[in-house]
Amino acid sequence: MRKKTRVVKIGNVEIGGDNPIRVQSMCSTKTSDVKATINQIKELEKAGCEIIRVAVPDMESAKALKEIKENISIPLVADIHFDYRLALESVKYVDKLRLNPGNIGDKEQIKQVVDAAKARKIPIRIGINSGSLEKELVYKYGNTAKAMVESALKHIKILEELDFFDIIIAVKASDIQRTVEAYRLLSEKVDYPLHVGVTEAGTSFSGMIKSAIGIGALLLDGIGDTIRVSLTSDVVEEVKAGYEILKALELRIESPIVVSCPTCGRTDIDLISLAKKVEERLKDIKKPIKVAVMGCSVNGPGEAKDADIGVCGGKGMGVIIKKGKVIKKVKEEELLEELMKEIKAMEDE
Amino acid sequence: MRKKTRVVKIGNVEIGGDNPIRVQSMCSTKTSDVKATINQIKELEKAGCEIIRVAVPDMESAKALKEIKENISIPLVADIHFDYRLALESVKYVDKLRLNPGNIGDKEQIKQVVDAAKARKIPIRIGINSGSLEKELVYKYGNTAKAMVESALKHIKILEELDFFDIIIAVKASDIQRTVEAYRLLSEKVDYPLHVGVTEAGTSFSGMIKSAIGIGALLLDGIGDTIRVSLTSDVVEEVKAGYEILKALELRIESPIVVSCPTCGRTDIDLISLAKKVEERLKDIKKPIKVAVMGCSVNGPGEAKDADIGVCGGKGMGVIIKKGKVIKKVKEEELLEELMKEIKAMEDE
Repeated sequence: MRKKTRVVKIGNVEIGGDNPIRVQSMCSTKTSDVKATINQIKELEKAGCEIIRVAVPDMESAKALKEIKENISIPLVADIHFDYRLALESVKYVDKLRLNPGNIGDKEQIKQVVDAAKARKIPIRIGINSGSLEKELVYKYGNTAKAMVESALKHIKILEELDFFDIIIAVKASDIQRTVEAYRLLSEKVDYPLHVGVTEAGTSFSGMIKSAIGIGALLLDGIGDTIRVSLTSDVVEEVKAGYEILKALELRIESPIVVSCPTCGRTDIDLISLAKKVEERLKDIKKPIKVAVMGCSVNGPGEAKDADIGVCGGKGMGVIIKKGKVIKKVKEEELLEELMKEIKAMEDE
Repeated sequence: MRKKTRVVKIGNVEIGGDNPIRVQSMCSTKTSDVKATINQIKELEKAGCEIIRVAVPDMESAKALKEIKENISIPLVADIHFDYRLALESVKYVDKLRLNPGNIGDKEQIKQVVDAAKARKIPIRIGINSGSLEKELVYKYGNTAKAMVESALKHIKILEELDFFDIIIAVKASDIQRTVEAYRLLSEKVDYPLHVGVTEAGTSFSGMIKSAIGIGALLLDGIGDTIRVSLTSDVVEEVKAGYEILKALELRIESPIVVSCPTCGRTDIDLISLAKKVEERLKDIKKPIKVAVMGCSVNGPGEAKDADIGVCGGKGMGVIIKKGKVIKKVKEEELLEELMKEIKAMEDE
């Protein structure tokens, strides 16, 4: 069961509540390099990225946000540290600010930023990172999930006291245990939508595994309203991995799911190649159906029954199973085409 | 905290209790093709596979186990369905049987198999699969985690009544939710070691993500004594992914861990390329140290402090940080070599 959270609007995209779990990313370009940043965002949009964040380390980057915003279609988020003036400039152009209010200036400066965000109905995401916790909290609690949550609550309180509630929160650590523990703790204390991710996850393969475990474990608990997979790699891969995690959990299915068995000594057909071909052919199918590609008669029929449609191999022959019934017995070499024929018919239904 | 389980011995490999979480796989070859099977197992051994299972669908495969066993170094497991005679033949050669006692014959036949396993001190793994549940349980509970656990308990009872306790259990479904729920339920009811996996996970990329989430979420709960990543792909990939999951959770670290930040507009060095180079160079290092490769001065130093050693980039320059202290400031082009020099020195310590 998904945890009930408030709905917060980022431009034209709602997150939290019953909205789909959103997939987002962050540009790796210099924000001041407007052309490169726009190009990267356009690539990300094509991959399905729904919210994009860019770093704003200086005034040149803040001013660049105007032109970037005018040239993209998805909500733009400015990532700001330490300097309230960058926030005041950014807030004119973007759909969300990511900043920790306690870090950006004195009381009056914080109020200026929060008032500007309130006036423009722009939410603020508080992003706690285990690597940059307040010294006094680390002293009190160690560098723990508890310290991260206390830090988040401190920043939340600053916003709430200024009558600001359009809040999204993240509490990311570079290890999975602390990350998961922090989100679980936080989720019990607040009903703001949560932005979930494991920070500094690492390069492509190991980062993907780390993010899948951390984000996945939280989503299984019903925690998480928007996710970001952090990879030291091409940003488009982050978006693909994000959707793959949501698909694996059947939380957001925009395309067919293939379940296929690992091959074993009972497999009489070339299953790896068949499963890959099926996946390839399904790329153009938009309907979220579950397709089983099974090798043998032991587990195959049972699993294929679970799926909307499936094939189950045998010696030279195979069967097509639809919603629990064997509808056709066909030669091995005709399995793929017969399966696709059935799937296309289902798509038209 | 890892859940306390009994220790069960499979050949010379112990699982459960405080033993390392074991990584295993299953051959995709025909077991009766002895040469191909031995070759595949040798490849798997090289990749670190610690227990290997092969399918035994017929008597020819059962008899082939003798020669296979003589030519490999890791424990061999026979996977048997429906036929107690295959179990009686296999038990002579292997280190573990994987069978569901209720499926292999009548009472007397089951007793023969269990007695043979007991005489040779060979454990039995019960493997429940959502795709082949007993009809009466599905009727009673639906195709749910509860039905899977009831099925497991039924098979366990058969063994226990025959005074057999060298038991390992798996309850795999093709979807993550049911898999995780079933293991969580089961883990509350028994203290036998658990073999954890998501069945029919799918092809390489999606299967890896699915397995990482399911296996990872359970390991985070302290559940799981041995894991198998099921992929419709090269079996060696299963073993690599298995170790990657254990490494991501810092449960079993046989080599250095690299944490690296996703690049963003604050990054002044070519971080993707640096992180990849560091990973490449670390391949020969056996010491389990944590190495941080960070791009900027915002989160970088904090995270690098968390690691045993790290680099943190800047404009043309970077710093080397060791156990929380900046030990050197170096030019960007010297970062990699300086980092490796420090790591090599740590390895010799």
